[in-house]
Amino acid sequence: MALIVQKFGGTSVGNAERIRDVAEHVGRTREAGNDVVVVVSAMGKFTDDLIRMADEVSPTRPPRELDMLLTAGERISMALVCMALSARGVESASFTGSQAGIITDTDHTRAKILEIRPDRIREAIDAGLVPVVAGFQGVSTEKDITTLGRGGSDVTAVALAAALKADVCEIYTDVKGVYSADPRVVPKARQLAVVSFDEMMEMAATGSRVLMLRSVEFARRHGVPLHVRSSFTWEPGTWIVEEDPTMEQAVVLAITDDASEAKITVGGVPDRPGVAAQLFRELADRGINVDMIVQNTGTNGLTDISFTVAMTDLDVAREACDEVKVEIGAAMVTTDDNIGRVSVVGAGMKSSPGVTALMFETLFENGINIEMISTSSIRISCVLRADRVADAVRHLHTAFGLDAASS
Amino acid sequence: MALIVQKFGGTSVGNAERIRDVAEHVGRTREAGNDVVVVVSAMGKFTDDLIRMADEVSPTRPPRELDMLLTAGERISMALVCMALSARGVESASFTGSQAGIITDTDHTRAKILEIRPDRIREAIDAGLVPVVAGFQGVSTEKDITTLGRGGSDVTAVALAAALKADVCEIYTDVKGVYSADPRVVPKARQLAVVSFDEMMEMAATGSRVLMLRSVEFARRHGVPLHVRSSFTWEPGTWIVEEDPTMEQAVVLAITDDASEAKITVGGVPDRPGVAAQLFRELADRGINVDMIVQNTGTNGLTDISFTVAMTDLDVAREACDEVKVEIGAAMVTTDDNIGRVSVVGAGMKSSPGVTALMFETLFENGINIEMISTSSIRISCVLRADRVADAVRHLHTAFGLDAASS
Repeated sequence: MALIVQKFGGTSVGNAERIRDVAEHVGRTREAGNDVVVVVSAMGKFTDDLIRMADEVSPTRPPRELDMLLTAGERISMALVCMALSARGVESASFTGSQAGIITDTDHTRAKILEIRPDRIREAIDAGLVPVVAGFQGVSTEKDITTLGRGGSDVTAVALAAALKADVCEIYTDVKGVYSADPRVVPKARQLAVVSFDEMMEMAATGSRVLMLRSVEFARRHGVPLHVRSSFTWEPGTWIVEEDPTMEQAVVLAITDDASEAKITVGGVPDRPGVAAQLFRELADRGINVDMIVQNTGTNGLTDISFTVAMTDLDVAREACDEVKVEIGAAMVTTDDNIGRVSVVGAGMKSSPGVTALMFETLFENGINIEMISTSSIRISCVLRADRVADAVRHLHTAFGLDAASS
Repeated sequence: MALIVQKFGGTSVGNAERIRDVAEHVGRTREAGNDVVVVVSAMGKFTDDLIRMADEVSPTRPPRELDMLLTAGERISMALVCMALSARGVESASFTGSQAGIITDTDHTRAKILEIRPDRIREAIDAGLVPVVAGFQGVSTEKDITTLGRGGSDVTAVALAAALKADVCEIYTDVKGVYSADPRVVPKARQLAVVSFDEMMEMAATGSRVLMLRSVEFARRHGVPLHVRSSFTWEPGTWIVEEDPTMEQAVVLAITDDASEAKITVGGVPDRPGVAAQLFRELADRGINVDMIVQNTGTNGLTDISFTVAMTDLDVAREACDEVKVEIGAAMVTTDDNIGRVSVVGAGMKSSPGVTALMFETLFENGINIEMISTSSIRISCVLRADRVADAVRHLHTAFGLDAASS
């Protein structure tokens, strides 16, 4: 008998029919002899509705109260799921983040889980119930209600699975699994059966939207196998697991793309120690995550530093750079929000030279200019003009032999 | 400096504009030098929406999950009120029933408050904040979320006011206060400035819908002065207070009417001891509250017992009576759901004979037949044909000199 955590996202509980389907699937999983813990998100667009209400009421949104507001969504969906389970003949009980023992820090709207005390969840399982837990929410060390930020429901599911030593954490969503590229960009993209944690982390970091980096990191750290599946077809999807030495590794597993970043270049920077540190300290102090960094050593003791940040952080980052420019005596700051990134990811890359060469050749042959490059042991990323990204993904998908045979 | 508990009902927080008005009023109350604790209901018809969603999802509604579902409503309204207060420059913090220390029994959907532990509310007040508390909800001794049933938000407000030793509990609603009769029935009804707890309890028990009997009882037991006011005009409304010996008592304060009950008659009952006890024990065991009871001693050692129950309990009550009929050898059971009740209420009645006589004369002169009578020291009620109730209320209102002079 296995213990399975099943997490259902907003579209999976989007209306009454979908909620009944979820109850049916949970019922079947139980009848197959498993214990089940359910984690739910708010229904469909309900969270957006709540934010619209807040906008109507007030121009200010104290973060503590925003959390109180948003956590209403999961309460509704989990109570409805329990009612549907009851109609299906499955006994269940709903638990808020607080009741489920999800203890977080006090950083409202993006709290981090500090500890899970799943005593009530364990008791419920032992009593033969299906616990239905609110995703995305917890209770802080100050006993205030917190939310976990974007992708928070997945984090709840993974964290609970880790704390309960579950056999698998199933993430149900509106796609069938993880693909070798975004199927909207590459019609010949293939569904992947197995992906390693490391690969999934690189994919999440470079544009795959199926799972947030954060939940994959958490799953890897605690060794929780993930299974991404569709709540529309209920068919097996993609497993994300610890890399197994006996597992045959594809050299290249997937091509990802990301259009959410912008580039900043600080030009004419005096080439002396400490200058880069000063710049990135200033950005870090404003809470800005910098992604790719490239420094071009120039002539005349001057250098250019380029880096990418999330598009949403561009204005704040630009401001920081303008300040630092004066302090360090740089010549200029330019920004470019018309870039995109394409990445090639695969664990087999480590032991297989030539991937970089094939990537650059493919882009060159198709007349696509590379503006920045960064690599990890299992990933190569290139920054391109935004309007060439889709092309680049399709050509790389073909060049690395990833196209599905059937189409 | 006074401590004021202000409770806002569903219509008072029904949309963004109303919520901003509430924040403005709370702000003014603070600026007048008072500490304020706010208690809110769910917005307008939101609770009805939630119940409709539950109906769509499942034919069964486990009470624990129904409570989890319904408590989402106050979470939303209290977070929005806090946001509006923030925009108004008033610092506040929201608290769920659980966070506010509202401890209840485990009787889901109609829990009773066992204890209030308002430590966090007191701390918030001491810190200069306005605590905004979810009405209608609590946490059970089993740590499950409960709701307090109909009128539950008023009960929360009164209970908190008692626990905090507040100077007054203000109940804001969509009417201006308590009237000498239902203004929809009697256009000349007058708004009452002061009503005693005893009078308000009689009025609530006999059809006044402004306050539920339950919250008035609670306020009386703990000596919490109530002030029922409009959240549309914000003008002073009706005070409900402990009777003061120096207070001039109106002989008759108000005429109430109630169409929510039905009459059951068990006829041809053997007139021997224990028969009535058996009947009413059977009803009590099924959780049915019996209101008026009349027994007519008949001839031949047979008697008729008539009583009224809530219309919603009629079917269950009828069933119980049919069973008892066989056991006690009664002749028949008849039901009548076409009745109404008119009541005359006034604390001065105790020391003023002639009220009963004037009531009966007024009804007689207007050709209205009395079917049942019951009295307390400060109330007389008559059961009439339903279609004569409005007429009866108007004539009695005039006969007892309650009509407003101006209209």
